[in-house]
Parts: sequence; C-alpha cells; structure tokens
Amino acid sequence: MSDNFSFQSLARCSQTKARAGIFLTPHGVVETPRFMPVGTLANVKTVTPAQLKDTGAQMVLSNTYHLHLQPGEAIVAGGGGLHKFMGWNGPMLTDSGGFQVFSLSEMRKITEEGVTFRSPHDGQIINLTPERSIEIQNTLGADVIMAFDECPPYPATRQEVETATQRTYRWLERCIVAHKRQDQALFGIVQGGVYLDLRSQAAVELAKLDLPGYAIGGVSVGEPAELMAQIVQATAPLLPPEKPRYLMGVGTYREMAIAIASGIDLFDCVIPTRWARHGTAMVQGERWNLKNAKFREDFAPLDETCPCYACQNFSRAYISHLVRSQEILAYTLLSIHNITELIRFTQKIRQAILNDSFLEEFGHWLNSSETGE
Amino acid sequence: MSDNFSFQSLARCSQTKARAGIFLTPHGVVETPRFMPVGTLANVKTVTPAQLKDTGAQMVLSNTYHLHLQPGEAIVAGGGGLHKFMGWNGPMLTDSGGFQVFSLSEMRKITEEGVTFRSPHDGQIINLTPERSIEIQNTLGADVIMAFDECPPYPATRQEVETATQRTYRWLERCIVAHKRQDQALFGIVQGGVYLDLRSQAAVELAKLDLPGYAIGGVSVGEPAELMAQIVQATAPLLPPEKPRYLMGVGTYREMAIAIASGIDLFDCVIPTRWARHGTAMVQGERWNLKNAKFREDFAPLDETCPCYACQNFSRAYISHLVRSQEILAYTLLSIHNITELIRFTQKIRQAILNDSFLEEFGHWLNSSETGE
Repeated sequence: MSDNFSFQSLARCSQTKARAGIFLTPHGVVETPRFMPVGTLANVKTVTPAQLKDTGAQMVLSNTYHLHLQPGEAIVAGGGGLHKFMGWNGPMLTDSGGFQVFSLSEMRKITEEGVTFRSPHDGQIINLTPERSIEIQNTLGADVIMAFDECPPYPATRQEVETATQRTYRWLERCIVAHKRQDQALFGIVQGGVYLDLRSQAAVELAKLDLPGYAIGGVSVGEPAELMAQIVQATAPLLPPEKPRYLMGVGTYREMAIAIASGIDLFDCVIPTRWARHGTAMVQGERWNLKNAKFREDFAPLDETCPCYACQNFSRAYISHLVRSQEILAYTLLSIHNITELIRFTQKIRQAILNDSFLEEFGHWLNSSETGE
Repeated sequence: MSDNFSFQSLARCSQTKARAGIFLTPHGVVETPRFMPVGTLANVKTVTPAQLKDTGAQMVLSNTYHLHLQPGEAIVAGGGGLHKFMGWNGPMLTDSGGFQVFSLSEMRKITEEGVTFRSPHDGQIINLTPERSIEIQNTLGADVIMAFDECPPYPATRQEVETATQRTYRWLERCIVAHKRQDQALFGIVQGGVYLDLRSQAAVELAKLDLPGYAIGGVSVGEPAELMAQIVQATAPLLPPEKPRYLMGVGTYREMAIAIASGIDLFDCVIPTRWARHGTAMVQGERWNLKNAKFREDFAPLDETCPCYACQNFSRAYISHLVRSQEILAYTLLSIHNITELIRFTQKIRQAILNDSFLEEFGHWLNSSETGE
C-alpha cells in the first residue's frame, strides 16, 4: 500500500472475526466497520454534501458507468475532479462500471477485450475495457477505485461462473497495469457467484497480488439473501487481514452484522435513499411506511434516540403529511434519517467491537430470522 | 394594532413613494421591503427550514386552502401549530384560501354566505366562509392571517367585479368579527380587478377599518402585467402609511421595483421555487435554463456575488449535470439560489432606500421594457 493509504486494525472481537479499524485515505479517515452512502451520479439523491456530512458519512461512492455517460469524466475533471465537482471533501470511491454494464445496459457483448454496449442516453455504442474503466476512474479522481469485473447473472451454470471469474482475474491484472495514480487505491473484486470453491480460489489468488484493499462482489445480483452469509464466511477470512475488506451492494442490518462477524469493514447500498423516495423510514431495525394512517397524528420524532436533522426537528406526522402530499422535502428528510440510521448501526457495532461486546449486543442479528429490512 | 405587532417606517425615498421599514411580529422582525418565500403545504418545496433561513428568509407563507385539505388544521394544531409543525420559528403568514378556491377548485358555487366546492383530494363537498377561513387560520396559528376574499376572474365585466368587491368588503367585516387571536394580525385585501376607481374606492373603505396591515390582491389572476403598475399606483398611496402593505402573488424583479416605488412593503411568489423545478436559475435579472449547452463546461458559480449555499459550493456545470440527470438535488440548489436572489434584490432596494439612492440604483427597472423574468 502506498504512503497515501493505510489500514490499521484497532480491535478484534474475541468470539467472531469482527474487527474495528481505521482506513486512511488522501481525503481523510474511514472508521471501520462503516456504511458508505451511494452518490451514483455525483450526488447522494436529494441530499446536499452539508447534510450528508451531518449524517456521519465518511466515504461516499460514485459510479464510473453513470458518470461516463453523464456528464462524462472530462467535465468532472474540468471541474477539479470528483471531490470538488460534487462538493464532497471526504474520502470517495468509484465503482468500476462492471456491475452496471452487466445489470443495466442493453445490447451487451462480452469478449476477452471487454464489453460493448449501447448507451441508454443517446444510443451510441460504447466500449468499456479494464484499461478504459481505470482510465475513467483515474480521470474522476476518487480515493479508492475498483477493478473492472465481469458479474455473471444469477442463476448461472458453474461453467459460466468459472469462465467469468477467471476472466475477472485476467481483467484485474490489466487494471493493475493500467492504473496510473499513486493517490488512488485500486481494490480487487472477488467473484465466483454462489460456488464457494470458486470464491475461495479467487480470494486466494487475489490475495497474492498485494492490493491495497479487496471487495467481495456480485452477492446481490439476484442471489437469495441466505447465500450471502455463506459466500462471505467462505471468502473474507482468505483475504489479507492487513487490508480493508468491502462487501459491495450490501446494506441491510442483518447482512451487515453477519458480514462484520466474518471480518468485513465496508458496505454500500442504495436502500436508504431509495426507500426514502418511497416514503419509507428505517427505524431501529424496522421499516416504516410513513403513509400508514397511524402516523397521521403521531407527533413523536421518527426515532427519539436519533441525532439526525429530521429527528431533531420534525414529527412523524409532519413527514407523513409531506409523503402524502408528494412533497420532495419528505424524500430529503427520510434520506437524511435513513443514511444516518445505517451509519449509526455500523458505528454502534464498531464501538461494541472496541468494547469486545459485539456478540453480546449484536448476536441476535447473526442467527435470527429478522430480516432487518 | 395590538402590542404583538408594530410597523415602523425608517426611511422614505425623496423621489418616489418607496419606503424602508420594520414590521415586528410575535415570531420576529421583517425588514421591508422584503420578498417572502411560499411554503404552500407547510414546506417551501425542496428546501429545509435550515436552508431557508440561510437564504435570508424572514416571513414565510403557507396556505389555508391546501392545509385544510391536507393534513387538516387539527393535525397542524396537534403538532403545536404551523411554526412548530413545519420547523419554521420565524414570522409566518397564511393566505385565506380565497384565491385558491377561485383559481383551483372545481364545482365552485358562490353565495353571500361563502363558497362551496368539491375537494380535489377525496371529492367531498367543502364549504368555506369568511368565518370558517378565519377559524382555520386561527387554528393554524400564523403571525399574519388574511381576510377571505372573492377574486373575480380576468377578464370580468365591471358589474361582476363591483359585485365581488362589495362582497369582499362584507366578508372582511365578518372576518374581523370572527377573528379571535390577539397574537395574529388580520390583513384586509383590496380587490377591484382592473377598474382603478373600484380599487381606489375599496382602498379608502378598507383604510377606515384600521386593520394591522393591508394587501392588494388579485393582480396576477390572468391580468396583463402592465396593468399591475397602474393598479398599485392607484391603490397603495390610499392605504394607511403607518401599516404594512403587501402585494400578493408578485415576485419578478421589475414588478417588485415598480410596486416598491408606490410604497409596497411585502411580496410573495412561487416563481423562484417553481422555476427551480424546471431547471431555471434567476441571475441578476436574467433567467437561465441550466440545460443550455453553454453551461455544460462552465465551472463558474451561478453568480459570483451571491452568498447562497449553491453559489458558494457548486459550479454551473455541476448544476447543469444534475438538471440533465433529473436529480432532485438540482431543484434544491436552484430553489436555494432563486429564493436568495429575490430576497437579496429586495434587501438591496431596502439599503438603497436607506441611502436615498433608490431611483439612482433601481430606476432602470421602473420604466424599462426589461421584464426581469
């Protein structure tokens, strides 16, 4: 790892593989475990950077695929790079675009060279390769950039997944060669679908490359949630303990608790902002539809223990009124609350790990049938 | 005027009727002339109260018609009244619902008693009278409440307008009787359509009632903009100089400058937030569509002289990107800017009046063909 980055494990749980650490980046620290809000198009939907900072957000994601299509990486660079363009001075991470190419784009063609697809914006044919993804990410300028990977669909045959996993490894080697900036850390991504032996094999091979960080990818591309635990349990312990570990696309209470118990440090998910735009609040492990009649005259805050702007200033009745009226401010207030809630959940787990009370305090999430959605 | 309210004229322009004053309410001062943002449904669309405060907003509007339909005044009162319910601790004003009943509702029937209409929410028949409007406004709890008036359509015959204006006067007398709260100031509304003699007559009659403030209503219900100046010039000087004067629904640069020159103190308009939601910025008298190609790579702030959050933190290129991507954050940033811009316009005029340089600095708005839209 270059001088620009360091990861330090401060404490380990005595009964699980959970750990509390500090990941240092050129734009500041990330205290792990930590939930990272998603700002796909260079903004966390409905939330200003000032509001985002108040949620406790440290590292924020953005997306290579989306930003390449709009506004284009040259404009982001012209605006001083991703941090300055979007007004977020803290750590940032860009996804490589691999997941989006495989899940969103039409007329996709995959070869050893890369992926060709049709832009949903203007219909033009776009070619994305490992080299091109890294070039775009170097231009965008996030602190952490991700390898360009192939995400096989679920379900897929073992042969299809094996082919994709091996190609992902060869693409990673090309990403490493293409990567030019010392102030950006390139993370590799462990693929392997639901095949635990393929996952383990990929983890072992990636570990040898001594990358500054590792991700486990593709666990939510249509896979049943139960498989996630098995995949993470089989994979995370094989990754180098001195490097940060990031479970991509996961952000429900239970999944995060399970993954943390296997040694995962970082999470991201669009759920808090997407649910907010559907009028849903995440409150202490529950999921509340603010349109529910019981909230119409409920003048308590969403969560009395929550320090967020929404809970400190408004009632459930007020937010319910805004949701019923389809007022955009409802989505802002719920996004602020939901992001704060998930970050607080990981902060509380971190504190429990430091106190070695993780299992005592959060053990009920590990084996329960609570979905925590 | 009760002890809860006072209006003081601090300075008068030596060449026009423009004046700078202070209007004191139970929730704080309003420095006049001042633009007031509109929060129809107990929120200024896309903007939090904290962001609204930073725009320089002092008095904020909300709407009796809309709040009666959703969530209902009882819920607002249950939440501690309008200020607490929506988290705005500054001065507030509620419109009476008259304008909305006449401009928005279906199956309207007008009698001497009041207006009957069908709720667009649930189809139920609603009866709104002067007494009911005041009762609702007493329950909502704004600092300033408005008389329930009849707004004749434009065009209307002289006879139609005369009938409506006389009824508006009789309704005002009933509003005065119905009004129960000493901590709320009831403003009368001068109607009279485009007939200057009817307007003058109404102003003289209303002035005799010694109300704590006066509004000029119905100048934007389909009337050509040129008529506004004549109506205000014929009406405002007849209203008591020791009371605040409010021109309802007006908020373009030129109209405000003209009205201020006739002695108007307060304005409201949905334009800054509505235009924001169409991707339009109001910049120093101009109207910019942020989708315009020229903004794609323009890394300057919207207005280098503007202190608002949007201008201090983001570029035209970034906001253009958000507008193109239909990201809601664009509407928040543009609303913050546009509200700040109109408030600053009235603040600058106020300072010019205090310096007796109003005509010198703002005279070009009074006779120019600049629409300032």
